[in-house]
Amino acid sequence: MRPYLRDPAAIYDESFATVRREARLDRFPAAMEPVVVRLIHACGMIEIADRLAFSPAAAETGGLALAAGAPVLCDCEMVGAGITRRLLPAENDVVVTLNDPSVADMAKDLGTTRSAAAVELWEDRIEGAVVAVGNAPTALFHLLEKLDAGWPRPSVILGFPVGFVGAAESKAELAANPRGSDFIALKGRRGGSAMASAAVNALALGASRKALQ
Amino acid sequence: MRPYLRDPAAIYDESFATVRREARLDRFPAAMEPVVVRLIHACGMIEIADRLAFSPAAAETGGLALAAGAPVLCDCEMVGAGITRRLLPAENDVVVTLNDPSVADMAKDLGTTRSAAAVELWEDRIEGAVVAVGNAPTALFHLLEKLDAGWPRPSVILGFPVGFVGAAESKAELAANPRGSDFIALKGRRGGSAMASAAVNALALGASRKALQ
Repeated sequence: MRPYLRDPAAIYDESFATVRREARLDRFPAAMEPVVVRLIHACGMIEIADRLAFSPAAAETGGLALAAGAPVLCDCEMVGAGITRRLLPAENDVVVTLNDPSVADMAKDLGTTRSAAAVELWEDRIEGAVVAVGNAPTALFHLLEKLDAGWPRPSVILGFPVGFVGAAESKAELAANPRGSDFIALKGRRGGSAMASAAVNALALGASRKALQ
Repeated sequence: MRPYLRDPAAIYDESFATVRREARLDRFPAAMEPVVVRLIHACGMIEIADRLAFSPAAAETGGLALAAGAPVLCDCEMVGAGITRRLLPAENDVVVTLNDPSVADMAKDLGTTRSAAAVELWEDRIEGAVVAVGNAPTALFHLLEKLDAGWPRPSVILGFPVGFVGAAESKAELAANPRGSDFIALKGRRGGSAMASAAVNALALGASRKALQ
């Protein structure tokens, strides 16, 4: 058996040091940098730093929203499961509507996926919310349609749907026109719930750092 | 707003068709191929097909274990959240011990991470189990140490820890010496809970297909 590092603090330190040593981070605003480091840490891929699209104020806006008590609206259970509750600055609600009993019928009625239909149930809480999409392109597309139809704006949209149908396209649509919200998104096919959760956790940590200053 | 595909069945079909069109799958045994397709589907990365290590019987062994009622032991909540319960052929238990109240103290006593300490609680259920590691390299290392110390064998180890410290090394150790278990692992830094869950879901689907034959 080969030797390995067991000390949690040492593992964190070495992980983040590796990310900072290998990644090109100089293009990011100061508040975004720790978010990018956490995103890379979550997926093991240094090169995603070059594929992130974002609005300049996204990290700060998201942190402030969480500090003010905004809910986190997630497109799937995995994103919710990856959010570290003790990091959240205001015991923020983490909301996953995908398995609400009404969603399956609504998806049929709307002629779309369950993930997209579940977004309908965000209406009451969308204003100022932190939205974390880590799985379904159709959830992100559906949200953008709702914003076009006049929904109030979330504070920040974390766009990390993954896969071969609609993922790259939905994130390109978000980056081209974020409809008045701030946003962070990974361009292309890659993404996933671990990255969406990591983005929320990074915003939460940013909010806590801010509060300590 | 650009047009996009909304029909769930059409999205699945086009996704899997894209994977099959782009990926090199010919080196895989027949039972492994759908597992590889689901792994790629979960992460959006065609090229992981070339970085998978596995024992030839892993997919069949894992499917048989699930059909026989084996529990699924996961290293974190996100892996558990990603397992589609209705696919499991025997209402199999999905076990996550990471947040057991005893784990934090045990981690301190053992001088290791909580993820590694949580593996200690698998002892009673490890024999014949399906193990899914989607986050922590130390959980995989700790399991291998326990197997070296004489624990009964799990049927299959799904090795997808992710990151910059120990992920590549723990999976290399597993692939070099799987200690009598079957295994599937993604070499290198990449991995994650979505891939670990996808592997379990694929084994479950394989078990169901087998039952229908």
